[in-house]
Formats: sequence, C-alpha cells, structure tokens
Amino acid sequence: MSLSIAASTQDLSPETVFSLLERVRSKRPRVHAITNTVAQGFTANVLLALGAVPSMTIAPEEVQSFAASADALLINLGTLDNSRRLTIPIAIDAAKEAGRPVAIDPVFADRSPQRCAYAKELLQTRPSLVRANETEMAALFDTRADVDALISEGTVFAVTGEEDQIEGRGDDYRLRNGHPLLARVTATGCAGGAVLAAFASVEPDTALAAASGLSVFNIAGEIAASRSGGPGSLVAELLDTLYSLTARDIESRLQMG
Amino acid sequence: MSLSIAASTQDLSPETVFSLLERVRSKRPRVHAITNTVAQGFTANVLLALGAVPSMTIAPEEVQSFAASADALLINLGTLDNSRRLTIPIAIDAAKEAGRPVAIDPVFADRSPQRCAYAKELLQTRPSLVRANETEMAALFDTRADVDALISEGTVFAVTGEEDQIEGRGDDYRLRNGHPLLARVTATGCAGGAVLAAFASVEPDTALAAASGLSVFNIAGEIAASRSGGPGSLVAELLDTLYSLTARDIESRLQMG
Amino acid sequence: MSLSIAASTQDLSPETVFSLLERVRSKRPRVHAITNTVAQGFTANVLLALGAVPSMTIAPEEVQSFAASADALLINLGTLDNSRRLTIPIAIDAAKEAGRPVAIDPVFADRSPQRCAYAKELLQTRPSLVRANETEMAALFDTRADVDALISEGTVFAVTGEEDQIEGRGDDYRLRNGHPLLARVTATGCAGGAVLAAFASVEPDTALAAASGLSVFNIAGEIAASRSGGPGSLVAELLDTLYSLTARDIESRLQMG
Repeated sequence: MSLSIAASTQDLSPETVFSLLERVRSKRPRVHAITNTVAQGFTANVLLALGAVPSMTIAPEEVQSFAASADALLINLGTLDNSRRLTIPIAIDAAKEAGRPVAIDPVFADRSPQRCAYAKELLQTRPSLVRANETEMAALFDTRADVDALISEGTVFAVTGEEDQIEGRGDDYRLRNGHPLLARVTATGCAGGAVLAAFASVEPDTALAAASGLSVFNIAGEIAASRSGGPGSLVAELLDTLYSLTARDIESRLQMG
Repeated sequence: MSLSIAASTQDLSPETVFSLLERVRSKRPRVHAITNTVAQGFTANVLLALGAVPSMTIAPEEVQSFAASADALLINLGTLDNSRRLTIPIAIDAAKEAGRPVAIDPVFADRSPQRCAYAKELLQTRPSLVRANETEMAALFDTRADVDALISEGTVFAVTGEEDQIEGRGDDYRLRNGHPLLARVTATGCAGGAVLAAFASVEPDTALAAASGLSVFNIAGEIAASRSGGPGSLVAELLDTLYSLTARDIESRLQMG
Repeated sequence: MSLSIAASTQDLSPETVFSLLERVRSKRPRVHAITNTVAQGFTANVLLALGAVPSMTIAPEEVQSFAASADALLINLGTLDNSRRLTIPIAIDAAKEAGRPVAIDPVFADRSPQRCAYAKELLQTRPSLVRANETEMAALFDTRADVDALISEGTVFAVTGEEDQIEGRGDDYRLRNGHPLLARVTATGCAGGAVLAAFASVEPDTALAAASGLSVFNIAGEIAASRSGGPGSLVAELLDTLYSLTARDIESRLQMG
C-alpha cells in the first residue's frame, strides 16, 4: 500500500538532521529494544555507535522496570516467540505511562497470519511510530482509510522502500538515501528502527525525528557501502561511519524525494 | 564413525558448482533456518551474501506458514530449548508437505544424551540431508548399517572433517577444501549447513547440491583466510568473498579427496 | 560501592600473564556460557580467538551434561528469561559437583529489582568469581561487610571501571588497561567475563587468573582500538589481536593501578 503522499512534502535541512544527531550523542538516550534474536547484536552495536545505550531483556518479570527507565521503546516483531508476546504489552504500557515514545516494526507481518494479527492489536495502542515496508503495510491495512485513522490519532508512519516516506499529522517527508548493499546484511532494517526510536526520544516532533534518524542511518549506509568490498565489510564500515558521521557528510549527501 | 566411502567417488566439476551457485543467486531461495541463537546472525548474513533470503522464527504459532512458504528448511540443534523442541516437528511437517528439502545439523549431539535422543527421533522423519562431523555421527549411530538404512530411504549425509564425505543413494563425493581458521569462528559449521539447504532448494540431486554448496563455502573460507589477519577479520572477508565468488575462484581451488 | 583495596596490592608480572594465556591456548578449555542472547555470538568468538571452546545451551534438559563436561561455567544475567532462571541453578550445581570454577556476571542488576534479587540468590552459591561494575556492586551489596563475608568464603571479586580491582582472600590487584572505545561495542564486558572463566579453568589461584585474563582482554582491546577506525572495525581487530597476542604485547602494555 502506498502512503500516497501529496507532491509537496516538507524539506529536511541537513543542519536539523545533524543537530538531532548531536542531541542523541550528548544525551545518550537509553533505548529498550525488544527485538528478534537475529538482530539483537547488530542493533545494540548500531545504538552504541550512534551514542545511545541499549538494553534488550524480553523477560516479562524484568521488562517493566527496564522500559520505564528507558527513554524510548522499540518493538520489533521478528522471531515472535511466546516470551515476546507476553512481554511486549507490558513494555508498551510501561513506556506509555512514563511518557516515552514507542516505535513498532512489524517485520514479516506478511509471512504469518498470527504475526499479522498480533501486529494489528499492537497498532491499537497508538504507537508513536510505525516502521514498515510496503509489503508489510499491505498485510496490515486493507484501506488507506485505516492508515489515516491511526495517523489522525498521532501515529507517524515511516514506510521504507526505494523512496522512504514519512507521514504523520504534521509535516510529511520523502527521502531517497540508502544503498542496495544494505539489504544484503541481516537486520539493517531492524537496526534502522532502533535509530528512529533513539531520535524520537530527543525530538518531540516524531515525523521530523524519524526523517532525521532514517537519513542519518541511510547516509552512513551509503558511505559505508562506498568503502566496502561486500556485505561483510559493510557491517564494520557502517558502525564506524555512524560513530563519526559529520555535518559535512550529511550536507553533501542528504537527498529528498 | 567413518562413512567408509569406496575409493572411487564421483568427480565434481567446477562448472557445475558455479552453475548451482548462479542458480542460488538468481532464484534467491527463501531458507527458513531454525538454528541456535549463537549462530543466527552469522547464518543470516551468510545466506544473504550467498543470495538467499533467510527467515528464523522459532515460534510454534508462526513456523508453519514460514516453513511452508520457504524453499528449504534447516534444522540446527545447537541451544535446543523447549520452544525449539516444540517447533521443529511442526516445521519439518510443513516443509515436507510443501515438498521442500529438509537439512538437519545435529550440533553437539555427543555432548548431551537428551539432545542425541531428540536428534535420533528427527532422523526418523527421513530428512533430505544430514550434516554432521564424525564425533556427532558416532554418537548418533551404533553401526554403519544404521546409516545405510537411512541412505536407502533417500537421506544424503555430509560428514565434515579434514576430508568431507558426501554419501547418498547415488553418487558420492570426497572434498578437501577449507581452512583451519574457520574453526576459530563460531557458527561457521552451522552457517555452512544453511548453505547446503540453499543449494538443495535449487538442485534435486541432493548429494550434488551438498557437494557444491560445501565446496562454495569452503573455497570462500580458504580465500577469506588468505586475506585475514585472524578470526575476526575472517568473518567480513568470508561474507565479502561469498558475495562475489567467481567461476575462476572455484576452478582454481576446487579440490577432491 | 568501592572495594576500598589497600594501597599496597600485588604486582602482576607480564611473564605470568602470558604463561596463563599460553596455558589456555594449549589446554583449549571448554567454557559453558549461559549468557544473554545479545552477547552470545561475540562471546563465542572471543573464546574461540583465545583458544577456548565455547558451548552455550540454556535448555534445562541439556545443561547438566554440558556444564558437567565443561572446564568452567560462566553465568551472565543479561536478558534473564524464564528458561535461564530455571537453567542457571542446574548448571551451577553441575559445575560445582564437577569441581569447576563458576563465574557470575550480574549485568544490569541495578536496572531491575527482580534481576537484582535473583543475582543475590546466586551469590549464596559461593561462586569462584564475580565480575561486576561499581553500579552493579552498589545494587547488590548494602555494606562492605556483605562483600567481605563472601570473600571470606572464597569468592573473588573483579570490579571493573576506570581502574579494575581484583580482590579475594589472597592477593589483590589493581589494573589500568583498557580503552574507552570498548564501551561502544556491545557485550565487551560480557565477553571479558567469559575470558576470566577460561583463565580460572587453568589456574587455581582465581584472583591471579582473573587479573591475568582481564589484562589479556584489555591489552588486546587497547591494541585493537589503536588499529580501528571506530567501534565496527574494533570487533574484528579485537578478535585478531586476541588470537595472536604476544608476550611482548603484554610486557609493553601491562599497567597496574
């Protein structure tokens, strides 16, 4: 499902993107990520390279205190086992009660009816942010009106693809950074979702936070791909680049749709 | 237990190996891998570098649809927790019903009687492929006749070691590629098993698929080791090499027993 | 909580540190690590690069035979789910019965009262070694007397920070190696704990083993950081350096407090 953003979308200034990145680097927000076991290590390293502090427990007994003391919560539905099913609602409640942003990434919702149904329930909690690709969006929503209903309640959508689209109640963004080699490394999308959560914790305008976070991650990915010999070396280059990304990097590469 | 392959085994042509690799790269098969938590990230990256598309959920509720919509199934018994015990038979049934190859890797069956007993049960499902080392084979089978019984029902064995032996109802292969440094990186064997599953999804002659997949992985390992400063840099080099392995690489290095 | 080590602590000779490293390399001890899902892959690779042999199952059915046949046991409390809660006491009993050292790493005990309570119970089993940072120590112990009580029963504490302090019934050590970039890679502390467990398996003086293992890991980290472009390349450099660390590396860098 296309989000069908109108032709005129908001421009994103490189200065704003960099200032939000600097805010993450100086505030060092805690991000609690309930994410799939495949993505955990890489996601933690992406958050650390960015300047954030990850925690990742999925134990129902523990998650309340972890989520309540974090600055943002990421829910990623890859490898959705029983523990995660139990734990996710507890974590969302705790984060919402503490006034923290909640980002949901319904990975592979199109590959399992059970996962899709679970994801739809989670959407009823009015998350701050949903990150999905077009296949997942099509599995989750029958009509554009269903998406609009959530947007009107305050959820921002970041729909990734060749062109990334960010849409919320306020400004919309179309973004075009990134590199095909990123798709040859597992969990780049999942780790990207964690970056959005980190940015949402330092900027109340969630669409702006999402557009900035996505741009930072994808620009770092472009630079890393240009320095890599393949998907293996890309991993290290991506983390090194995120760690040291400069205002000039963003200025020279930021690309809108 | 040695598979005691007769002296005359089938030669494997580099052209065939490369053509199967190209088939994986163009078909981009989906491989559902129920593998241990230690190996998940690396296995996913190996599959992506190869050109395949991994999925890895172990949730009993979800696995039926994931396994049924995949082109091959890998079952790896490392970190065999309760969820995995419940999920594995569901996944095998779904894959078999969909006519997909099933590869089993009974990791460390020699280290736990419970795991060994579970692995023996799985062997009764007549998997397409069993990948094991000699210690695991000795734990799983009392006599050579027990191995022969499974072979006569269509299972192919890939027994890895200094010399790798592939044996099925049809042609047998002895292979000698690989590098000792691979044993200093976790999950290289596990990820190799996933490569075999990917190859088995594009080639109905499972022994040929296994011999080709193992050769591709081990040749990539050799090249990567020659470019590495140790086991850390080997990981990135291995993925980069798999991603760009050429016909010439295979031709110049393929080595039979 | 500071361990308040007296000004005069034991010197550690580079020759001793290297001889213990060589002992690990030649004995290739099996280390069973019940560690968090985020840290598993990296911890396994650190152990392999060091020369040890990792296993990591958390299944209650399997862990008895794995722990009993290992040379050391590491318990790390990150991502403390139900399986791990059930499995950890079984593993500790098996390791103690087999006379193997047990190391406990109470990760993030300060972030969850439930985890803290569980960690306190584990301390009652008189582990050989506790690795913790000062925040975790403060969450676990109300008074210095509580620490002393455990020390008098034979537990050695390795409290990491800008200066690392090792304290047991015998000699104490203050160590100053390491590099800030290590904190930007996930699970470096967790993997360091596994290194201590490996060293404790080859040297009965646990404080000496801990001081040597920590020095090896932190010196490798320093060298790796000096060769890295950021936290991504640090991972590969750290493993490569551990794999090939020399007596001269230790001699030229070992630094006491």
